[in-house]
Amino acid sequence: MKTMGLRDLWLVNPRQFPDAQADAMASGAVDVLARARVCSSLDDALAGTVLAVATTSRYRDLPPGVLSPRDAAARLAAEATAYPVALVFGSETFGLSTEEVSRCQNVVNIPADPDYASLNLAAAVQVMAYEVRLAAGTGPTLPVPEFDPATLEDIERLFQALDQALQETGFLDPRNPGRLMQRLRRLFSRTRLEKEEVAILRGILKSIAK
Amino acid sequence: MKTMGLRDLWLVNPRQFPDAQADAMASGAVDVLARARVCSSLDDALAGTVLAVATTSRYRDLPPGVLSPRDAAARLAAEATAYPVALVFGSETFGLSTEEVSRCQNVVNIPADPDYASLNLAAAVQVMAYEVRLAAGTGPTLPVPEFDPATLEDIERLFQALDQALQETGFLDPRNPGRLMQRLRRLFSRTRLEKEEVAILRGILKSIAK
Repeated sequence: MKTMGLRDLWLVNPRQFPDAQADAMASGAVDVLARARVCSSLDDALAGTVLAVATTSRYRDLPPGVLSPRDAAARLAAEATAYPVALVFGSETFGLSTEEVSRCQNVVNIPADPDYASLNLAAAVQVMAYEVRLAAGTGPTLPVPEFDPATLEDIERLFQALDQALQETGFLDPRNPGRLMQRLRRLFSRTRLEKEEVAILRGILKSIAK
Repeated sequence: MKTMGLRDLWLVNPRQFPDAQADAMASGAVDVLARARVCSSLDDALAGTVLAVATTSRYRDLPPGVLSPRDAAARLAAEATAYPVALVFGSETFGLSTEEVSRCQNVVNIPADPDYASLNLAAAVQVMAYEVRLAAGTGPTLPVPEFDPATLEDIERLFQALDQALQETGFLDPRNPGRLMQRLRRLFSRTRLEKEEVAILRGILKSIAK
């Protein structure tokens, strides 16, 4: 949950807390555990929230509105800009009881292979936290290096040089060119060439000419 | 990966395989491990694939095209209908080397909190497998109980009964009704009432009248 930018963990009746093993497994996210709030009932944990979404993989006779992870995340992220909201997970072994689910306005079900549909708790938390992060619109983490795109002029000069080079090597017969250049244009048109790449390709062509 | 319907695991130079601890942790997914193929190089593993997407959280100077998990999944799912494709993950500790990434046509970066961006391997696999499942369009797992929606007539009769009941209790003054019924209509209009729910509500109103 910390990797996805979520910080507020509420634990309802944990078997043991704080817990040395949990701290050890939390690695760089011990601060989330240190700040976690312990409640004696789900109602206490949900007090003050305006929207609670329960995760379940179990069929329920009378579920609250069932949402996809994506729709649930959109609703949670939208409400969360103004009010506290909650994503509710059951225990690894038993999931949420029907009574606990009935405390929530919506149920979310993570699509899974019907033959092996039981995600473990960490996996379900990861998927939901990821969807919430996307829905909150916080964008990707990884900086993407920026390169100057080649201009169409650069690219045209490249094709001229290529055409000439291929004539010089004899690969392209100017009296019978077929669709060779067209195919090469098509290939490069899919790559959105960068300035530097064009320079490199022209360098290669020059080296061929020599 | 099995919960998301993925079955083909290729391992490049695993430290130990088969491995008793891995089997124990796989729980109901031992069949995926039993079928896993072991290769001595990434090139061997990727032989025959038409698209390989490398997952990374590390900045690269010269990455292949960077995609979001959603876009990567869409591409993988589309190609996978006709050809083998690969999602490539590095080891828990070191991730993928630059050389390994350069074997792939695309890089995917899972959005994360820049302050704590390192998802563990299982978390990254879960997110990508989930996106691939969604992109493959295999829909949700959980059957949703179906109830007959109330018809508009049912609902109108309910409102008439409600109006009358509220007059009988004295809560609604017919000479000065204000916007009470309008507000109640608005409330119920958001719920898409079911036939049985309307019957229950009418039952309640009848019990009030008695």
